[in-house]
Amino acid sequence: MPQFLSTTDADFEVRFTQVLNAKREDSPDVDAVVADIIADVRARGDAAVIELTRKFDRLDLTPETLAFSPEEIDVACASVSEPERAALELAAARIRAYHAKQMPEDARWTDDVGATLGWRWSAVSAAGLYVPGGLASYPSSVLMNAIPAKVAGVERLAIVVPTPDGIANPAVLLAARIAGVDEIYRVGGAQAIAALAYGTETIPPVDKITGPGNAFVAAAKRRVFGKVGIDMIAGPSEILVIADKDNNPDWIALDLLSQAEHDESAQSLLITDNADFGQAVVAAVEKRLETLERRVIAGASWRDYGAVIIVKNLDEAADLSNRIAPEHLELCVADPDRLADKCIHAGAIFLGQWTPEAIGDYIGGPNHVLPTARSARFSSGLSVMDFIKRTTLAHMTPEALRAIGPSAEILATSESLEAHGLSVTARLRKLNE
Amino acid sequence: MPQFLSTTDADFEVRFTQVLNAKREDSPDVDAVVADIIADVRARGDAAVIELTRKFDRLDLTPETLAFSPEEIDVACASVSEPERAALELAAARIRAYHAKQMPEDARWTDDVGATLGWRWSAVSAAGLYVPGGLASYPSSVLMNAIPAKVAGVERLAIVVPTPDGIANPAVLLAARIAGVDEIYRVGGAQAIAALAYGTETIPPVDKITGPGNAFVAAAKRRVFGKVGIDMIAGPSEILVIADKDNNPDWIALDLLSQAEHDESAQSLLITDNADFGQAVVAAVEKRLETLERRVIAGASWRDYGAVIIVKNLDEAADLSNRIAPEHLELCVADPDRLADKCIHAGAIFLGQWTPEAIGDYIGGPNHVLPTARSARFSSGLSVMDFIKRTTLAHMTPEALRAIGPSAEILATSESLEAHGLSVTARLRKLNE
Repeated sequence: MPQFLSTTDADFEVRFTQVLNAKREDSPDVDAVVADIIADVRARGDAAVIELTRKFDRLDLTPETLAFSPEEIDVACASVSEPERAALELAAARIRAYHAKQMPEDARWTDDVGATLGWRWSAVSAAGLYVPGGLASYPSSVLMNAIPAKVAGVERLAIVVPTPDGIANPAVLLAARIAGVDEIYRVGGAQAIAALAYGTETIPPVDKITGPGNAFVAAAKRRVFGKVGIDMIAGPSEILVIADKDNNPDWIALDLLSQAEHDESAQSLLITDNADFGQAVVAAVEKRLETLERRVIAGASWRDYGAVIIVKNLDEAADLSNRIAPEHLELCVADPDRLADKCIHAGAIFLGQWTPEAIGDYIGGPNHVLPTARSARFSSGLSVMDFIKRTTLAHMTPEALRAIGPSAEILATSESLEAHGLSVTARLRKLNE
Repeated sequence: MPQFLSTTDADFEVRFTQVLNAKREDSPDVDAVVADIIADVRARGDAAVIELTRKFDRLDLTPETLAFSPEEIDVACASVSEPERAALELAAARIRAYHAKQMPEDARWTDDVGATLGWRWSAVSAAGLYVPGGLASYPSSVLMNAIPAKVAGVERLAIVVPTPDGIANPAVLLAARIAGVDEIYRVGGAQAIAALAYGTETIPPVDKITGPGNAFVAAAKRRVFGKVGIDMIAGPSEILVIADKDNNPDWIALDLLSQAEHDESAQSLLITDNADFGQAVVAAVEKRLETLERRVIAGASWRDYGAVIIVKNLDEAADLSNRIAPEHLELCVADPDRLADKCIHAGAIFLGQWTPEAIGDYIGGPNHVLPTARSARFSSGLSVMDFIKRTTLAHMTPEALRAIGPSAEILATSESLEAHGLSVTARLRKLNE
């Protein structure tokens, strides 16, 4: 049974804080191992990657077979069923259309002193995308990572995906092809991150690495951050549903379970202003758990981290939501827009009872790579912004320099940076000749 | 003497790679020490911060004196000279005007299937800004970090600044006041980062930490990344000047020296298509180094990491610039806009001979916190974007769900995520009743 709380309970604050701070992730300290793997790949390149792949994935590769060949990808793509291909193509088209709107504008203007200022956006040249391995790898995640990169204008997009015992998911390869991925390497783990960051004889280095992975991948991304850009260190998935009594308890139960089935560490929370409705949802979850394929995982997640919180009104719900800062926030209430305005910290909001979170995972258009573990307080889901960078521009005329240069001289002197000041002084002197 | 290279040299590629990869930073491995400090601050809060401040800064604080009082700030501000105050205020106004233009728009639209999609930006609630300590701390950096945060709408903005032996820079406190900073704590080092990330009895936690610092601060930021957001791990400063012969060698020399004087690890590079001009700049640098206040630092930087590179033409210069991905790029050529279009990877570009880089450090308007160590390949300077985050929005109508829901069911089945599919199926069934 999940936690059942009410804001009117005397011990609510204590119990809510426990829900909020539940240590859901068992983070083994793999940092030393990962440091060794990265050093090995930097020192020995392909040879290290091949040796580590033999060890961890029981797969014998050569420099020639590190990447999937076009023919191998052809064969895999042809094996995907037609309905699945059509679904992937619809998803890709919708994700592409959404992300195309994210491309920001360049700017340039001349201000009151005659200085021309602005900025310019440009794409990262090469990006690498980590895709978790084997048959459990998700083609939808390939689309969600690769399409923003291609929309941003990334010229070279590489995927690394481990194929333990040589088993690859054909739908992942098809998703990569649909998204326009240029290279696919069958390597995984920290060794794949190291190869992308530093390059090997066969795998050229990239500038940015995105995508989810296990503890080894996360530790490797943290270590190579700075040498390359990374997206985020993702934790287990979460959903918060805020629902009033005018909902079908079974629909809400399925929405909660669609996070819980991801991972025993996932967290599914329901906030409602109606205790009877809350109980009805709990009953519906129990009923679905009798037959759900992934009932062991979903049941453990719901039992250990799930919670139903009864509030006096929806304002209280919004306040709690802001403390939770959920990855996914579903608002199944009469006026979801009004409630959304009050929910400031959330990765993605799903408005109304006809917008199950699963739509966002696959086909809605917005990205499903979202900030977890309360990081929606300060970060955003994946977007084209992750694959572009801004160069600021400044152009002074002699008159502009005459107007603002003297203040720069004063500040340089104040900071004891004489050459800074002199670089302005020398020019101003010429103007005053 | 700096390196003197020409692209026509037989060994150019080898020597250019050496310049590019010069190991300029001595990164002591302080990670273990920092891990202990963070654990101590998490466990003991104020007591740990106070004890570490006594140890490292030789300063006795109490919980009541951790923060500067308004009266102390008043006194410090009053001690700043009037010209310096006016210069800071002009700088603040120009930085504010530039960054105000960066605020992105929210978006919302209804697509062809009737789904309403979009996103919404909101500010980080609380941010903390690290300011390096003592008299060497830079008021300009306070403006550059604090103003974007306030423009973004950050409600609570705290500064941490070490004051070794109790010595504070009054201009830093004035800059903080001008920028609208809410709290100023006289603590520094890894203990200050830990206090901002996890909070103590006196220092409430923040959501995002920005600002430069030494190796301890950098290691602490890397460790707390995830718990809070961070800006970047900054390295020593760099400038690349691309100049043709129609420039005053002394001006270019001063621009090169204004990076070199920051730090013995700074790197100043000149690319020119005229060898005689290159030699003239080298001579001008030597002459300035005879008298420059910071000649020991600037001389060491120029000698150890400086380089003059002779190219055949400006296209070649742009290619090299893209490999360098400089933090600061100054284009002193006849048509700087045209050359800028080809220089894709750079933190900030200064166009034309009347735009010395020092203008950008203080008063131009764009931010001076910029990506170093080739990270302009994948990252941007500090901006309002660092203090806001995006929430994606999706609202399906029953008709929209009918149109795209079946594809979500197919993909969920393909990924063996049954509850995901059922959350759509249950709703579609209702529609088909």
